[in-house]
Amino acid sequence: MPNWLLPENIADVLPSEARKIEELRRLMLDNFRLYGYELVMPPLLEYLESLLTGAGEDTDLRTFKLVDQLSGRMLGLRPDMTTQVARIDAHLLNRTSVTRLCYAGSVLHTRPSGLHATREPLQIGCEMYGHAGLEADAEIQELALASLALAGFTAVRLDLTHVGVLRALLDNCPAAKRDQAKLYAALRAKDVPDLQALTQDYAPLVRDALLALPSLYGDIDVLNKAREVLPDLPGIAKALAELAELAALAASAIGRAQVAIDLADLRGYQYESGAMFALYVPGLPNAVARGGRYDHVGEAFGRARPATGFSLDLRELARLLPTAERKHSIRAPWGNAPELKEKIAELRKSGEVVIQSMPGHSHELDEFECDRALVLEEHGSNWILKNLG
Amino acid sequence: MPNWLLPENIADVLPSEARKIEELRRLMLDNFRLYGYELVMPPLLEYLESLLTGAGEDTDLRTFKLVDQLSGRMLGLRPDMTTQVARIDAHLLNRTSVTRLCYAGSVLHTRPSGLHATREPLQIGCEMYGHAGLEADAEIQELALASLALAGFTAVRLDLTHVGVLRALLDNCPAAKRDQAKLYAALRAKDVPDLQALTQDYAPLVRDALLALPSLYGDIDVLNKAREVLPDLPGIAKALAELAELAALAASAIGRAQVAIDLADLRGYQYESGAMFALYVPGLPNAVARGGRYDHVGEAFGRARPATGFSLDLRELARLLPTAERKHSIRAPWGNAPELKEKIAELRKSGEVVIQSMPGHSHELDEFECDRALVLEEHGSNWILKNLG
Repeated sequence: MPNWLLPENIADVLPSEARKIEELRRLMLDNFRLYGYELVMPPLLEYLESLLTGAGEDTDLRTFKLVDQLSGRMLGLRPDMTTQVARIDAHLLNRTSVTRLCYAGSVLHTRPSGLHATREPLQIGCEMYGHAGLEADAEIQELALASLALAGFTAVRLDLTHVGVLRALLDNCPAAKRDQAKLYAALRAKDVPDLQALTQDYAPLVRDALLALPSLYGDIDVLNKAREVLPDLPGIAKALAELAELAALAASAIGRAQVAIDLADLRGYQYESGAMFALYVPGLPNAVARGGRYDHVGEAFGRARPATGFSLDLRELARLLPTAERKHSIRAPWGNAPELKEKIAELRKSGEVVIQSMPGHSHELDEFECDRALVLEEHGSNWILKNLG
Repeated sequence: MPNWLLPENIADVLPSEARKIEELRRLMLDNFRLYGYELVMPPLLEYLESLLTGAGEDTDLRTFKLVDQLSGRMLGLRPDMTTQVARIDAHLLNRTSVTRLCYAGSVLHTRPSGLHATREPLQIGCEMYGHAGLEADAEIQELALASLALAGFTAVRLDLTHVGVLRALLDNCPAAKRDQAKLYAALRAKDVPDLQALTQDYAPLVRDALLALPSLYGDIDVLNKAREVLPDLPGIAKALAELAELAALAASAIGRAQVAIDLADLRGYQYESGAMFALYVPGLPNAVARGGRYDHVGEAFGRARPATGFSLDLRELARLLPTAERKHSIRAPWGNAPELKEKIAELRKSGEVVIQSMPGHSHELDEFECDRALVLEEHGSNWILKNLG
């Protein structure tokens, strides 16, 4: 096997793609900052226990593990940055006030989430700690929408869901509680036959509600239908009221989106605790960004704080965008004369890409399209720009 | 052990430090681009064979290893990005012309290089392929100096060395060739007693030269001294001539540095092949940036290309800089009124950080120092900025 082959679902990012990713990364981080979100950089490696704190079996299975030579303990490569940032809020910053944090970095997965999915997503996102109200969720949703708008996506669909609905049903049916992992999977897949088989012996009230969830999908009117078909439990009423309020807030947010309700879409339920959302763009069946409440993650680090946030994979998002145009640049000869060096420095200071040709290579083509050349004026000693045909 | 503790020599980067790192990263990458260097992003994980191609035992020992569940093969976490970028040049781009590439990303080490060194440096650097002449080395040195100047370091010392000197000596003495790893280590440590013991049975010509190397350190005049005390071998004459030329080129580069020669400083000799350099700043005993020729790395990937480059650890460099001042920002009330949302959007568009207080949290302090507040005009309906005491 040639030694330049890469593992499956692992890839180099080449210049045209890397530039798109870098530009998006900067636009999004700058926007997070304008909203008051501070950048943090958690490590790629942590002790496995910390990394898997509060996470489910899914996360455990997709985490690469290795042994720390210094301590003899197991380390994990982060599969996700959300719990790391919650740890930073809980322990390192330890503020009582509202804290807004953002991050951007690679995460690694032992197995890809789909056939063509990368095992090294570039996760970018932001999190707000310390405020339990829906205002925090609304700000996070606005930021997620604004991030997609910065990438040029304006026709975005915002799907809202709430783990409170299912949780209320589970709390009313011990049999369902026992099956919860299977139920989540069947609901996520909208697999009705599977749901019918699973719920056979449940209380009729819970069974009917679970079987109704996959069809509780569509525009905001779904909330009315849900009020009719779902049992009148306090947890369900609260969840539906929160969704109605979030849908209204989203309609007035910067970067308007089409709002939809999907009560069966419960990915990431393991640490989520309230309203959740997913953003979809035309042409891609999977959500490009996901977020929601996860108030209980901090608890595992000894300090429960209300928490809500979102994240997306910059690599996947960048792949959807057209290739950036090559920047026009200036070719200059190699040389060490102060006048030439100064002229080149001046052009670069004004933002021009100036490529000094290495001796013997002045007629090569490269990725930068040189549309001008820096040449010595005829019969003169000034360096001037000449247009290239 | 509490689950929020991190492994030794692994740390979170908190907001004030993260901002410095992010700003430096952008300044340097932007400058690389102005010189025509294109950004690439190699993966964090590769098959171990590819990662260790052309690398020595040192690199092997500091590489974290794990098993790929998809292929059953050994993977390594990159301890360095230089060979990855050489692989990209050799195989993915496969150009015949001069190619300029740059990169920035985390690398991981099983053991720290020093007591307080991080095991997760943030490596940033650039590489030029396809030109064997010293002009390429001069451009790389200029970029390394310019990178430090962007970080505010102007009193920089550039140490030059050349692996050709030692290589010529080894080629003239089979006993020395056998001991080469030990000789490199003793020279690097300038450990003369160790060198005396090692060289006891060598040819006197080679022995005297090896013992002289640790003292061939100082300003540019060292090159004259070297011509006197080192044997008149073609490889040595060529290496000294190259160093003289590079020293002259460095003196005329943007971001002038004090130039020094250190013929015994041969770190990274395993893949380096010609002139090498190290940059030092006041207050830090270790080099902050290193670079040089490594023409043979591409060979291992089936395509030998002249190559020269440099890299530095952004985390270490940022630690040397003063903490950035907190940016003044604007506190705004929570609210959904279109006038308020528009006013906030307008302020953010102009570059102001605007933090919407969550209800009930409006008097908390946070990392952003709010020096102004957005308030409703008395007896009016306009939102205006009010200075806070």
